[in-house]
Amino acid sequence: MIIVLKSGATDADIAEVCRRIEALGYAPHTIRGELRTVIGAVGDERGKDDLLSLQNLECVEAVQRILQPFKLASREIKGEPTRIRVDGVEIGGPRVVVMAGPCSVESRDQVLEVAAKVKAAGASILRGGAFKPRTSPYAFQGLEEQGLKLLAEAKRETGLPVVTEVMEPEKVAVVAEYADILQIGARNVQNFSLLKRVAETRKPVLLKRGMATSIQEWLLSAEYILAGGNPNVILCERGIRTFETATRFTLDLNAVPVIKKLTHLPVVVDPSHGTGHWEYVEAMARAGVAAGADGLIVEVHPRPAEALSDGPQSLKPERFAELMQQLRRVARAVDRDV
Amino acid sequence: MIIVLKSGATDADIAEVCRRIEALGYAPHTIRGELRTVIGAVGDERGKDDLLSLQNLECVEAVQRILQPFKLASREIKGEPTRIRVDGVEIGGPRVVVMAGPCSVESRDQVLEVAAKVKAAGASILRGGAFKPRTSPYAFQGLEEQGLKLLAEAKRETGLPVVTEVMEPEKVAVVAEYADILQIGARNVQNFSLLKRVAETRKPVLLKRGMATSIQEWLLSAEYILAGGNPNVILCERGIRTFETATRFTLDLNAVPVIKKLTHLPVVVDPSHGTGHWEYVEAMARAGVAAGADGLIVEVHPRPAEALSDGPQSLKPERFAELMQQLRRVARAVDRDV
Amino acid sequence: MIIVLKSGATDADIAEVCRRIEALGYAPHTIRGELRTVIGAVGDERGKDDLLSLQNLECVEAVQRILQPFKLASREIKGEPTRIRVDGVEIGGPRVVVMAGPCSVESRDQVLEVAAKVKAAGASILRGGAFKPRTSPYAFQGLEEQGLKLLAEAKRETGLPVVTEVMEPEKVAVVAEYADILQIGARNVQNFSLLKRVAETRKPVLLKRGMATSIQEWLLSAEYILAGGNPNVILCERGIRTFETATRFTLDLNAVPVIKKLTHLPVVVDPSHGTGHWEYVEAMARAGVAAGADGLIVEVHPRPAEALSDGPQSLKPERFAELMQQLRRVARAVDRDV
Amino acid sequence: MIIVLKSGATDADIAEVCRRIEALGYAPHTIRGELRTVIGAVGDERGKDDLLSLQNLECVEAVQRILQPFKLASREIKGEPTRIRVDGVEIGGPRVVVMAGPCSVESRDQVLEVAAKVKAAGASILRGGAFKPRTSPYAFQGLEEQGLKLLAEAKRETGLPVVTEVMEPEKVAVVAEYADILQIGARNVQNFSLLKRVAETRKPVLLKRGMATSIQEWLLSAEYILAGGNPNVILCERGIRTFETATRFTLDLNAVPVIKKLTHLPVVVDPSHGTGHWEYVEAMARAGVAAGADGLIVEVHPRPAEALSDGPQSLKPERFAELMQQLRRVARAVDRDV
Repeated sequence: MIIVLKSGATDADIAEVCRRIEALGYAPHTIRGELRTVIGAVGDERGKDDLLSLQNLECVEAVQRILQPFKLASREIKGEPTRIRVDGVEIGGPRVVVMAGPCSVESRDQVLEVAAKVKAAGASILRGGAFKPRTSPYAFQGLEEQGLKLLAEAKRETGLPVVTEVMEPEKVAVVAEYADILQIGARNVQNFSLLKRVAETRKPVLLKRGMATSIQEWLLSAEYILAGGNPNVILCERGIRTFETATRFTLDLNAVPVIKKLTHLPVVVDPSHGTGHWEYVEAMARAGVAAGADGLIVEVHPRPAEALSDGPQSLKPERFAELMQQLRRVARAVDRDV
Repeated sequence: MIIVLKSGATDADIAEVCRRIEALGYAPHTIRGELRTVIGAVGDERGKDDLLSLQNLECVEAVQRILQPFKLASREIKGEPTRIRVDGVEIGGPRVVVMAGPCSVESRDQVLEVAAKVKAAGASILRGGAFKPRTSPYAFQGLEEQGLKLLAEAKRETGLPVVTEVMEPEKVAVVAEYADILQIGARNVQNFSLLKRVAETRKPVLLKRGMATSIQEWLLSAEYILAGGNPNVILCERGIRTFETATRFTLDLNAVPVIKKLTHLPVVVDPSHGTGHWEYVEAMARAGVAAGADGLIVEVHPRPAEALSDGPQSLKPERFAELMQQLRRVARAVDRDV
Repeated sequence: MIIVLKSGATDADIAEVCRRIEALGYAPHTIRGELRTVIGAVGDERGKDDLLSLQNLECVEAVQRILQPFKLASREIKGEPTRIRVDGVEIGGPRVVVMAGPCSVESRDQVLEVAAKVKAAGASILRGGAFKPRTSPYAFQGLEEQGLKLLAEAKRETGLPVVTEVMEPEKVAVVAEYADILQIGARNVQNFSLLKRVAETRKPVLLKRGMATSIQEWLLSAEYILAGGNPNVILCERGIRTFETATRFTLDLNAVPVIKKLTHLPVVVDPSHGTGHWEYVEAMARAGVAAGADGLIVEVHPRPAEALSDGPQSLKPERFAELMQQLRRVARAVDRDV
Repeated sequence: MIIVLKSGATDADIAEVCRRIEALGYAPHTIRGELRTVIGAVGDERGKDDLLSLQNLECVEAVQRILQPFKLASREIKGEPTRIRVDGVEIGGPRVVVMAGPCSVESRDQVLEVAAKVKAAGASILRGGAFKPRTSPYAFQGLEEQGLKLLAEAKRETGLPVVTEVMEPEKVAVVAEYADILQIGARNVQNFSLLKRVAETRKPVLLKRGMATSIQEWLLSAEYILAGGNPNVILCERGIRTFETATRFTLDLNAVPVIKKLTHLPVVVDPSHGTGHWEYVEAMARAGVAAGADGLIVEVHPRPAEALSDGPQSLKPERFAELMQQLRRVARAVDRDV
């Protein structure tokens, strides 16, 4: 890190800061500028915040980080991209993987119908929520274990592996019994107890970005899972919160090339939650593929106007099939396929 | 709610929307404007999202909410302010309650020293973290149950009730054994499993606003606790995430008068996390009291530059004592006291 | 608009609000709900804010807008897309138009070299700044009229029409003499005096979105130009300000499908300013085309590390040529061409 | 500045970066860390962006600024607070100065009535808009020069100096003829042509923060005026744009202590625009004074529900008089007066 001293810092101040830097196990390196003295603290600062406390000294103006604070998630530790295999589907390889299905599992008929249709259209993985994080306590909270069983049945019927959300540590075991990929929702991206528990399962984890999570914080959440011994982390950009209200969130596709630069983990894009309006899903799905995403996760519902959750952002199966055609063409234009 | 139809909606479209509104249990009421037809859906929509799915109809442009979606938290249900008593300290009454203590409990000496000093300066409640939500998996994660015991000892020594954070449903029982107030941190404001569990304890809950949580969503999280049978919710504004980087977060004091208008629940302000810099804590603490907050929660550490977490935003005990003098004067200027 | 009354509003309150609605020239239409009375004000509210003042009545809780506030920019006034011709280049038609060139015009050699190279790579329009809005008063402010002359010379050499920024009303005449398209920068999107002046020229205007401008406000700024008699407005998404700092701004590609739904005006995307880092420009340029943009505007500099402004986001000519190849493929995948 | 090299940077890379740093007039100072080499560029970087272009070198990961980029606005250049005298009223001294009046000047009667009433309540300066920046081209645009004359008449009647907005360079002369303080609105904070022109007048300037302007950028806009030879700059915090919609903007009171730390210029707070709702103005005005603001600017209208602009955020004269009583008490609690 770089410690910037206030103007007017004395030699005694500099000596004191250097002493503290050494006490914390780093080597101080002082540069006296015309207006400011800055002191570099040489050592591996990744994952450590100890030097930040120097900000509390009266003579210190700021402490600036040099290294990204994550390790295992970084390209420096692992140069080549991570590829994650789920029942024969590879995420992070040349193919763009499309995950599709309803927001919530609502009934046996609904989930079997959607599963068959998204499979026919070319999706590789089935999504569907059994445990639902709902902003209001009065909203439909999901079918819970019954929903997991219906997803498992849909998997038996179609062969599609299943991704579904787990919301609390105590449910990790039961969800892991039915799901092929454990989804951590945006609201739980910094639920560290949950991250530690899903790490223990060694199952692939789809880690959604929080609505106010910086890319650096998001990768630190991934680091919790990696450091817990589970290398199978798939990142999922799903929209951040900004001042703009024309869309429900602002799908941040810039995150795709940034993620590709910083980490070896695969990244998928969720244009349904990211925009919140079915009319914008197709454009943003195509854009996600063109930006270099390794996959998409799309909400599909046979009768969106009757959906128990997130109807406004769900595509009908016919539109989804059409979208798959478009995605195939865009994927080929960037030397991939769907 | 108000359903706005697209221009060019036909009589058949209008009839279809009305039919669906009735099917959902509301009475439709059509207004044909010069350029748009809008249909009011009359009924108690609070806590229900069912009408939102009408957005998925091709003829619908938008669905606008009329009522705030929370009920029990609203001033309409309960006009007079909620007052919560904790071991003889009343939150939400005429006195402004100051909670103070270290970010993390680090050692017996540290917590006993701080507790004695903040009590001497006039604080009414001791804060301190035993379970710590840390962005990085490599950072100090708290003393856990050992920390809870040290807090209990500090309470025995000083008589100050204790507020401390609980991070996961499975730990609610153990934290509730030691704590007088259960804190839900910003990152868990929409951890609905946790909200349901703390509701069951009936203990007072300090519910921090998330860094990207709108006031409406925050009150819906409070509603989870209220609807779970626990009326003792204290709201805590602790800064939201914005584009500004001169402060760590943007403490949103506007939330204080908004909260006072919308709800009967008490609200406290956290100027330490809100700004992230000890140099700004005093100004924002004074401003919080002047804005009408029912309390403050302030980080105090005997040697901030050696703190294991959040040193940069901690006050030394002497500055805290000085701040208490300032707060007393501001509180009196708004007809309260500390 | 919809006027929502507070709970407890009396018949006298309702009558008073209705009286005021009529006085403002609208027809009131009252819906008495279970918990709230709402009053629709029927009439053409577009472009008028008069009803908003009803919020100041004690009995009024909120005033909600039903119609988008712009008119001439809306799809309702003009269903088919606007196509703008500039010296034989059509913007808003089937071809995706690429504008490229240096951030600032720095010298004759620099601009002629870049112009020749971007033309060879397939760009249709030359961009370059002669008047530069710079955050710091000490930064290079552009070559001014001398820069305009160099752009004109580059046009003579290459045949490429020129887009360049105008920053103040008094300079509109001189810039219009040399430029084919007048650019309004992000910081001037609500410089209404400037918008009125460029409207008078009838020249095509490239109107950048401000960094905190909602799409609705942006279209109202376009409306200033349209209402001033100039139908030739090209919208340009260039990134909004969010909490994320990994990119300089957050390029909001969601704006592309939203703009396509709301307005008939063409929209181009600026991945250079939008991301602020040359390493992310290619991915976001491809994504912009896949999202449906009508064009791109890209910074190219022969020696970016020596650029007098915005070097970090400029592509070298060779990379730009490579990017054009990629864009051609993506454009064809969405049934367009570059 | 600090130049951070990518991991894997070679000795040749380091030498090349050092060579470029020297060419730009700085002295390079290399620190070889375990994982990264960083190079400090020693010299006065303030106001210069030249080193930023090094980001474009393939071996450079990031360039970090050490010094704040403004000079004349900084506390290092001028330690003691700037006090600005306007017709016997001092801004930046011990008294908190209250500026009040209508959003727009609408008629002779209106402005004279408000002026008399705010003076009676204790305001020191009259505010009122003659040229109005309006989001919609169809909204009331102000009485223009006629409005300036009415303000001048109100000044003759009451003795209150006048602050009013100027929107374009060509109007600076006429506005300066009537106004005692020239206001630069939020939308013009980076209208650099306008900043240069108001600098020439040497008149006091009230510089509003833009809705997405960082504090650093805001001070650079102040620097334009200072560097233009006009030391009389008053900063005005008026709310930033965030995701929260319960208030029109988010009044950022944190800016007050930050500004006090970074600069010697006085700062005033606008709770009317900052919140957008009259019901929140009083709480935030009190909070502004408690946070340390040197003044307030408040909208007052005799009949807000009939105001031609910004009625929803205007106080009636009686409430304003009451507010002044409250402010007097809070000011005294922080050793000031109003």
